[in-house]
Amino acid sequence: MRWAQTGHDIIIGSRDAARAHDRAVTMRERTKKLTIVGKDNVEAAAMGDVVVIALPANGLAATLPPAREACRGKVVISTVVPLTFGGARLFTPPPAGSSAEEIQALLPDAKVVAAFHHIAAHELAETEHDIECDLLMCGADVAAKAVVTELGTSMGLRVVDVGPLSNAGPLEAITAVLATINRRYKLKNSGIKITGLPS
Amino acid sequence: MRWAQTGHDIIIGSRDAARAHDRAVTMRERTKKLTIVGKDNVEAAAMGDVVVIALPANGLAATLPPAREACRGKVVISTVVPLTFGGARLFTPPPAGSSAEEIQALLPDAKVVAAFHHIAAHELAETEHDIECDLLMCGADVAAKAVVTELGTSMGLRVVDVGPLSNAGPLEAITAVLATINRRYKLKNSGIKITGLPS
Repeated sequence: MRWAQTGHDIIIGSRDAARAHDRAVTMRERTKKLTIVGKDNVEAAAMGDVVVIALPANGLAATLPPAREACRGKVVISTVVPLTFGGARLFTPPPAGSSAEEIQALLPDAKVVAAFHHIAAHELAETEHDIECDLLMCGADVAAKAVVTELGTSMGLRVVDVGPLSNAGPLEAITAVLATINRRYKLKNSGIKITGLPS
Repeated sequence: MRWAQTGHDIIIGSRDAARAHDRAVTMRERTKKLTIVGKDNVEAAAMGDVVVIALPANGLAATLPPAREACRGKVVISTVVPLTFGGARLFTPPPAGSSAEEIQALLPDAKVVAAFHHIAAHELAETEHDIECDLLMCGADVAAKAVVTELGTSMGLRVVDVGPLSNAGPLEAITAVLATINRRYKLKNSGIKITGLPS
């Protein structure tokens, strides 16, 4: 919703193109922006300049391989967090070290950047207020991180570069911290800010 | 240094009691507080009401077992972060899930609380300025977390309860984020603040 408001074209992807289309219609009505469409996942990936992956962590291996060619050479943003609710441990990194690194292995020709894990979904859906959270990102490709920086800045976020994609596990882990704080303090939008950075 | 300044008695522990004694002498001179002494690790643990573990992550299994009885029933604060500098990945959780959980397994009769990972050492050594960082803690024992809350508050920190000890991995992981930011932005004291909490 925030990207639509700032003038980006939006392609919603889903396993079910009809569901993606319905969601796009709803977003068009809410934003009064016409350039929002819904497609099946592979077609959405093929149409996009930047691909944002917001899937459950356990669905990556089943969903991504058909989109490999569609993602070739593109900036792919992983927002995925491997959390397990109701078990003994909320966060356990996957064997790849992080969901972002798993995505990079499944889409070897993409430029994966891990980011947006800590911005609550409803903060992205409501566009009237400022988001009180830094955007932490990591990835191997400097140009890809510049694109993500622009996308974050366009919604008013301060963007902090947290180095290589091997730091994605710690970024994903922070979501477990925020989810626990939300539950314990009865919040829905705790976030984090880095202190000590030059302003 | 900050605890000494606020009136706590301090016992420095070391494998080498003479080194601990020398450090205690230096701290007594700097703080003008007489109740700072140095002992070997097990004696220090036996004397303390609260035990703070600030060891390298790979030294826990060798160092802690002799202190098991000395730590029985006590609040044991783990500040340990399992970071690997110079390798492919800065943070990899140990098999126990976190260093704090490894400590709990080595000291089964202690009340382990994970905390203070994000407060830079030099922030604790210099006592003149406020520390711009929240104290995130987790652990199983509510009374032990109340003690840690008091110890954090006594040095001016806001304390945030991040639930059970199984969240210690994410807290330890945040140190990798801050270490990377320090290096990348040429800082020595980046920290984090949780946003969205009632003030």
